[in-house]
Amino acid sequence: MGTMMEMMESMPQAATTGMDMAMMQECIEACSAVSMTATMCADADSGDDMARCASMCANMADVATATMRMMMRPTGYEPGVMHAMMTACVTMAEACAAECRRHAEMHEHCRICASACEAMVETCRRAMSSMSAA
Amino acid sequence: MGTMMEMMESMPQAATTGMDMAMMQECIEACSAVSMTATMCADADSGDDMARCASMCANMADVATATMRMMMRPTGYEPGVMHAMMTACVTMAEACAAECRRHAEMHEHCRICASACEAMVETCRRAMSSMSAA
Amino acid sequence: MGTMMEMMESMPQAATTGMDMAMMQECIEACSAVSMTATMCADADSGDDMARCASMCANMADVATATMRMMMRPTGYEPGVMHAMMTACVTMAEACAAECRRHAEMHEHCRICASACEAMVETCRRAMSSMSAA
Amino acid sequence: MGTMMEMMESMPQAATTGMDMAMMQECIEACSAVSMTATMCADADSGDDMARCASMCANMADVATATMRMMMRPTGYEPGVMHAMMTACVTMAEACAAECRRHAEMHEHCRICASACEAMVETCRRAMSSMSAA
Repeated sequence: MGTMMEMMESMPQAATTGMDMAMMQECIEACSAVSMTATMCADADSGDDMARCASMCANMADVATATMRMMMRPTGYEPGVMHAMMTACVTMAEACAAECRRHAEMHEHCRICASACEAMVETCRRAMSSMSAA
Repeated sequence: MGTMMEMMESMPQAATTGMDMAMMQECIEACSAVSMTATMCADADSGDDMARCASMCANMADVATATMRMMMRPTGYEPGVMHAMMTACVTMAEACAAECRRHAEMHEHCRICASACEAMVETCRRAMSSMSAA
Repeated sequence: MGTMMEMMESMPQAATTGMDMAMMQECIEACSAVSMTATMCADADSGDDMARCASMCANMADVATATMRMMMRPTGYEPGVMHAMMTACVTMAEACAAECRRHAEMHEHCRICASACEAMVETCRRAMSSMSAA
Repeated sequence: MGTMMEMMESMPQAATTGMDMAMMQECIEACSAVSMTATMCADADSGDDMARCASMCANMADVATATMRMMMRPTGYEPGVMHAMMTACVTMAEACAAECRRHAEMHEHCRICASACEAMVETCRRAMSSMSAA
């Protein structure tokens, strides 16, 4: 993630639009981990009883990707929009983690995906509190 | 959109998960229009004073794409997650339409993008009311 | 697709970068249909024997989406890049259609997805010939 | 990237479909870095003379994201499709790096984006040679 940190430090927009880039970077890393683990979990799920898990993971990967891209665009930053998107991402992650946890003992990929979702929920919630306080 | 309608009619999951496919299809079409117009509006924006518009349109395109993909996955449908995602999409669209409206007289692409966003807001709000009533 | 046609007509970049917007619009519509049918086919696939179909459809949806977005950005148009991306999209679509055809008699969603892929291959090949001739 | 490595080790499909997961992981990391730096570079570009850079970076981010997602789906792995997609990704990256290099002295974000693209080209070329040899 060294490249991204370097990139974020080079961005002058952060100052003007008020996006907290250090906080965002933690969220981006957490979203990136989820977008990857959820994509791989969806791909590894097979069998009738895993269809719901695969579908939720596919949704999770798309939502995490869209959320992290929004976090990488300080120029168009709008606190209200970011808050709504992070809420959607956290809501999706709680549902996805709950589903993956049900198969965590049987499928290692579900356990890893659930953990990544839970970590992202925590990171995003912390950022949302700090945004609300500002 | 004939292909998609045919596809949706072929999906047995709708029945089991309770996603209203006819309602969703209208939303998908509205999101698809926005994902396209916002992508093109962002690309057409140039000049210092259009940077914020371009950034918001890039966000809008990503959010609309992720939202419509979620609408095309009845297997993992969760009403609470869908509601949060549609809320994020509508919040983004209101901000994007407001920004695009500011340049609508000067740039035809901004006028078209704003209209597509406004139409999607209306369609999604209607679907959200009907989901809440259910 | 009325909104998109209106949008494309409003884009002055087409003239400067030499992207054939009428040709591109046909390709965008074909890619859009595939991005939707492949997303829905992947979601509908369940059972051990459908895992490969679901994975290929998930890839197909992502490639079609990235390809159509490139087609909606005349400002950064590069014929060589577009040609490589359309080649990737066509290669993916041929593989996806072949896989879906194998289940087309059993699953209506596979039949629809295969047809959309095949139609896109034809449209893109035609556009690629016309680009090469230019 | 610890989470992803753990995930990849948990995936039994790799063995059956023949995707070289260690090689893929290096490529995924390089694509992930580009998808982030190109998204941020596009957002930071403003002014008439940067419109082409912004458009190419937006394309680059989408292509890198689609490519890395394909690399995270061993279940549907097809060597020919992967080769075509990596070719598209490398072709896009060379064009994007060339454009960003033109502004690298003036814009730090362009320098960082160009470097990430160049590193990805090298990593992907190495993987493609090893795939062809197999």
